[in-house]
Amino acid sequence: MASSSSSDSSAPQTPQIRKDSVKNRWVIFSPARAKRPSDFKSKTPINPNQQQQQCPFCIGHEHECAPEIFRVPPDNPDWKLRVIQNLYPALSRDIPAAEEVNNSDSGRVVVNGFGFHDVVIETPVHSVQLSDLSPREIGEVLVAHTRRIKQLMSSDSIKYVQVFKNHGASAGASMSHSHSQIMALPVVPPAVATRLGSMKEYFDQTGKCSVCESNSKDLLIDVSAHFISIVPFAATFPFEMWIIPLDHSSHFHELDSEKAVELGGLLKLVLRKMSLQLNNPPFNFMVQTSPLGDNASQLPYSHWFLQIVPQLSVVAGFEMGTGCYINPVFPEDAAKVLREVKVS
Amino acid sequence: MASSSSSDSSAPQTPQIRKDSVKNRWVIFSPARAKRPSDFKSKTPINPNQQQQQCPFCIGHEHECAPEIFRVPPDNPDWKLRVIQNLYPALSRDIPAAEEVNNSDSGRVVVNGFGFHDVVIETPVHSVQLSDLSPREIGEVLVAHTRRIKQLMSSDSIKYVQVFKNHGASAGASMSHSHSQIMALPVVPPAVATRLGSMKEYFDQTGKCSVCESNSKDLLIDVSAHFISIVPFAATFPFEMWIIPLDHSSHFHELDSEKAVELGGLLKLVLRKMSLQLNNPPFNFMVQTSPLGDNASQLPYSHWFLQIVPQLSVVAGFEMGTGCYINPVFPEDAAKVLREVKVS
Ligand SMILES: Nc1ncnc2c1ncn2[C@@H]1O[C@H](COP(=O)(O)OP(=O)(O)O[C@H]2O[C@H](CO)[C@@H](O)[C@H](O)[C@H]2O)[C@@H](O)[C@H]1O
Ligand SMILES: Nc1ncnc2c1ncn2[C@@H]1O[C@H](COP(=O)(O)OP(=O)(O)O[C@H]2O[C@H](CO)[C@@H](O)[C@H](O)[C@H]2O)[C@@H](O)[C@H]1O
Repeated sequence: MASSSSSDSSAPQTPQIRKDSVKNRWVIFSPARAKRPSDFKSKTPINPNQQQQQCPFCIGHEHECAPEIFRVPPDNPDWKLRVIQNLYPALSRDIPAAEEVNNSDSGRVVVNGFGFHDVVIETPVHSVQLSDLSPREIGEVLVAHTRRIKQLMSSDSIKYVQVFKNHGASAGASMSHSHSQIMALPVVPPAVATRLGSMKEYFDQTGKCSVCESNSKDLLIDVSAHFISIVPFAATFPFEMWIIPLDHSSHFHELDSEKAVELGGLLKLVLRKMSLQLNNPPFNFMVQTSPLGDNASQLPYSHWFLQIVPQLSVVAGFEMGTGCYINPVFPEDAAKVLREVKVS
Repeated sequence: MASSSSSDSSAPQTPQIRKDSVKNRWVIFSPARAKRPSDFKSKTPINPNQQQQQCPFCIGHEHECAPEIFRVPPDNPDWKLRVIQNLYPALSRDIPAAEEVNNSDSGRVVVNGFGFHDVVIETPVHSVQLSDLSPREIGEVLVAHTRRIKQLMSSDSIKYVQVFKNHGASAGASMSHSHSQIMALPVVPPAVATRLGSMKEYFDQTGKCSVCESNSKDLLIDVSAHFISIVPFAATFPFEMWIIPLDHSSHFHELDSEKAVELGGLLKLVLRKMSLQLNNPPFNFMVQTSPLGDNASQLPYSHWFLQIVPQLSVVAGFEMGTGCYINPVFPEDAAKVLREVKVS
């Protein structure tokens, strides 16, 4: 990217509207609304003191939780992680799947809220955060996600499984004990359908996979043997990061346990860099994968990745109205800052 | 809606997935995640004490603001409202419009960030909120929006104008002095294109306008001669409200000043009910209208409305990943609660 400024930034100094060819979304990059990218710090950092107490997710409190699906290691009271049912599930596993109760007179379209909603307790200890775990332990959490997806795939009615993590109250977490969630849905959700359509269009036009193509020097943060971390070219949020497998692969659940450890190492690095640079911000991560069911085969245009979003800005009226986002930090600048963070 | 429960709620007791046929969005309604709808209260109410100080938007501080576009009444130091340029505009009015700087080698699509970004100062007095104004004064604010849209329409490059308001820090407001914003965009934003497409599909299938059809007894809050307030059937957010003109009309900017006063009255009522019932929550409102330019004519399927969203819940990993939303409050229940709020 050429620049007319004398700063060490490689990013332009007038606003740009960039197209995210993976999500089919326009994002406004606005230098007038930016502080220097190195000044971005969370105003609501995670307070480690909050994390002293005991909760239902702590070891020894299993009886306060909804039923367990599996634990690692199995049948061991001294577990390292547990996958359990969500006590307040958004969807119900106990009602008929996708029965349409469409009232055609009124034009109202309704489907039964069938689905699965699980919680992954990532550590037995209340004060431990995901980034405190070793690469091997983070790998075990990721393998628990893939194992649960494979179980859920056996239900014909499940079309998509969303794995996500909320960390910190302003990123939506109601429980501070380190956990992630797994929701299995009877429909392909709109953002996934849009993403698949957009990646297919890119492939039809260029013969290339849009996610493979996101790898570029100015956007790179770190690399390992089979994965890279980048700031995407049209990042929706300031300091949004993606971890992408270098080998083209459509489905997250096909990750093997050896690569899961490597991915765990790169995720740990990204989380530690984010925490050091941005003042331990609340964050979300989302696995962006491909639909299941009939569409579960390898697709040339669809490539899974992990999306990590620190919670630094508020989505407000403009974004709610238009679906366009305003990002004050150019991705090249964010990538440079993150590349250079020293992790001891 | 039939109900098997013995409560006075008309809403069902198992989760439902409803389709919003205006926004083409699936929303999960989850009774397991709900408190009683009458228990919903903001945890971060707007603090009226915050509103004591002086700021650049206050009368007498005009020199601290970016240039004025117009004021009401004109040329009067004792103004009632001002429309000014945004000091930190997300888009720039000083660069060429929509020049594509697409680098086809890299597959990266970029457009110049041309556009207009204005602020409407809704009152000269720091401590006055929009809902404190009279229906006539709120009408004047709405007329200022329409007048500015008509000015912006004269630029051929402007395809859509988004009017929105952020009120309260957790709804994104960085200024507490009552204001709204107007952003004029060189592209039709994705959520608008999706909404138009969805309304057109509904019209092609049923011969009816999906917004006209949203009017139903169980979802109604209040009515005036030419407007209704409702909770939409597939509300994305708890206690989301729409104000809809009863006469089918595509463009907000065609609102006349007499109807603006009536709309001001209904908006005031909705805001006061929201404030009383939900503990003066932060909120956003968005004008949902139709594109300009070539498409500025009256469309049989497109119908403008005002969307009002109290800030009660956090958008987290699931919503970011899927574009599906979880709403713990059934719209019939929210409408009933809001219908019954007594405003003195
Ligand atoms: N004893 C117990 N046994 C089993 N499960 C238990 C439990 N106690 C609590 N839980 C469940 O544990 C989960 C913890 O999840 P998070 O803290 O990540 O966010 P939550 O789902 O509450 O909402 C956030 O994420 C969702 C989805 O993105 C958003 O809709 C919402 O606004 C945001 O706050 C909750 O879903 C809760 O129901
Ligand atoms: N002296 C002055 N003269 C003229 N203008 C002045 C000014 N001082 C401040 N301003 C402008 O006034 C506006 C006030 O707007 P709001 O408080 O509604 O939210 P803001 O745009 O900051 O961001 C919120 O809304 C946007 C859009 O939805 C989100 O991207 C963002 O995250 C959220 O916090 C700001 O845009 C600011 O630039």
